[in-house]
Amino acid sequence: MRQAGRYLAEYREIRKSHGLLEICRTPELAVEVTLQPVRRFGFDAAILFSDLLVPLEPLGIPFSFAQGEGPRIENPIRSRSDVDRLRKVEPRESLAFTLEAIRLLRRELEVPLIGFAGAPFTLASYAVEGGPSKSFEKTKALMYEDPETWHRLLSTLASVVRDYLTAQVEAGVQAVQLFDSWVGALSPEDYRKFVLPHSRAILEPLSKLGVPRIHFGTGTSGILREMREAGGDVIGLDWRIDLDRGWDELGKEVAVQGNLDPLALFAPKDVLLDRVDLVLRQAAGRPGHVFNLGHGILPATPVESVELLVEHVHAHVLP
Amino acid sequence: MRQAGRYLAEYREIRKSHGLLEICRTPELAVEVTLQPVRRFGFDAAILFSDLLVPLEPLGIPFSFAQGEGPRIENPIRSRSDVDRLRKVEPRESLAFTLEAIRLLRRELEVPLIGFAGAPFTLASYAVEGGPSKSFEKTKALMYEDPETWHRLLSTLASVVRDYLTAQVEAGVQAVQLFDSWVGALSPEDYRKFVLPHSRAILEPLSKLGVPRIHFGTGTSGILREMREAGGDVIGLDWRIDLDRGWDELGKEVAVQGNLDPLALFAPKDVLLDRVDLVLRQAAGRPGHVFNLGHGILPATPVESVELLVEHVHAHVLP
Repeated sequence: MRQAGRYLAEYREIRKSHGLLEICRTPELAVEVTLQPVRRFGFDAAILFSDLLVPLEPLGIPFSFAQGEGPRIENPIRSRSDVDRLRKVEPRESLAFTLEAIRLLRRELEVPLIGFAGAPFTLASYAVEGGPSKSFEKTKALMYEDPETWHRLLSTLASVVRDYLTAQVEAGVQAVQLFDSWVGALSPEDYRKFVLPHSRAILEPLSKLGVPRIHFGTGTSGILREMREAGGDVIGLDWRIDLDRGWDELGKEVAVQGNLDPLALFAPKDVLLDRVDLVLRQAAGRPGHVFNLGHGILPATPVESVELLVEHVHAHVLP
Repeated sequence: MRQAGRYLAEYREIRKSHGLLEICRTPELAVEVTLQPVRRFGFDAAILFSDLLVPLEPLGIPFSFAQGEGPRIENPIRSRSDVDRLRKVEPRESLAFTLEAIRLLRRELEVPLIGFAGAPFTLASYAVEGGPSKSFEKTKALMYEDPETWHRLLSTLASVVRDYLTAQVEAGVQAVQLFDSWVGALSPEDYRKFVLPHSRAILEPLSKLGVPRIHFGTGTSGILREMREAGGDVIGLDWRIDLDRGWDELGKEVAVQGNLDPLALFAPKDVLLDRVDLVLRQAAGRPGHVFNLGHGILPATPVESVELLVEHVHAHVLP
């Protein structure tokens, strides 16, 4: 999960003079904000600071962030001709800033670096809706009304994301995470028909690169088996399911990441540690658990809670 | 699920001269909008038109609906003294308009009438946040920081809702539905500790009244067993889990309601019927399935799709 962000004073300091996308696109800044939380908390791995939408611009789908709101896409993708107009993307050229940040980070970091990219469904949902959405009306309408265009769009996105993650591995990331943040809006049937093949088209070829592949979503308690079928060495679980129950669904051959509610970090110390212990207890007895939040850390999160969490998990896990 | 609403021209016509809460509080208007969809589509049951927040006002938590937005509560509940200030509610007096609508409806209707009320967590989430929320920060903060106040608030809400639903049954509803729309935001552990006892305190005593109790939520794929433990003769499933898989979680002794994605009504005829057939196929072979959407119908829903759906389900189910 993104470790950096508005809950850190040192990040807010940088944001005073730099926009979110400017940070993503300026290797030195991306390196700095990636390192900030690792320095402060001593996490066991770093995750590249970036935004999941960065591949959209080279595709020909420019976007911006309105103050205090989500992304806004000026010309959403709604038709076959919109999809046909998308440009061919060579991530080594048009997303070179990310790859440069990775190379710089590898020199600085003593812990492993996780690369990341948005998954085709989540990217498409922004591209089609034109911004964040609650019910994904336009996305599902395109899916249902013009499945050919939908599959064309998702397969275009999948090939960009596959190349982007491959380039990240070549630049030095030691694991990759595919973020399908909004895929929990779908029925299992829609996931199987409209999403699974495209996520698989990314995750399958990446298996040859020899780095762990983390496959993450939220609200996915009902489609865990389908996500597993799409691929990944580690499947992300959010807090809406008991970790052990989710792991039983997935089967023991796969690792899991999760699954503390980010809101638990707002709780008093004893409640927070109680929830952390529950996760650790549910994960006990089998290898392959990556302790993490079930979704991104919130801006108002108290920094002391994060310190406490890291210390507690380390004390539990390390000999 | 609410059958009436902005997708119907005859409802929009009434809304031209009457506010949402005015309709809820005027028996003749509530009757008319409850009957509209039954007349038009020939549903097998009617659900009382109301808003789940109506019990808040007699409690001393006034609210209003801003144009095109969700409810807004002027003075949210955040502390022990806020909870202590809540008034005692006698639904037979302060919510008499609903009971009168029920009595009128029973004279008009040839199909059963379903009563309904919001569940304690969902009501509390509005009361504490002051309106709709994405991450329920304030609600969870109260839960974690001051569990005693939280339980006091939920038990107050539970006793009002229990009395309200009891009064609805006495007035003539032939089934009751407890709506816990936002409970899917919780981890199973939080649900068990902070919600389950209060929902049970409503559902258990209602069992003596001899009407089926429907227990509904969304995003609940990971807490189905807990919801079942809280009670209900029928458990609602949304579309985020295959109906047969959800039913297996719940066990065969309970009935299920669901679980078509409301967005499927935006799909072309063949896709819609394909999704309806999938639900019917997954429900086949065991009694106790109430065909329904997985959540409320959206304003832009094409009326012809609802007609087609009803016709198709009837043709499938009736001899």
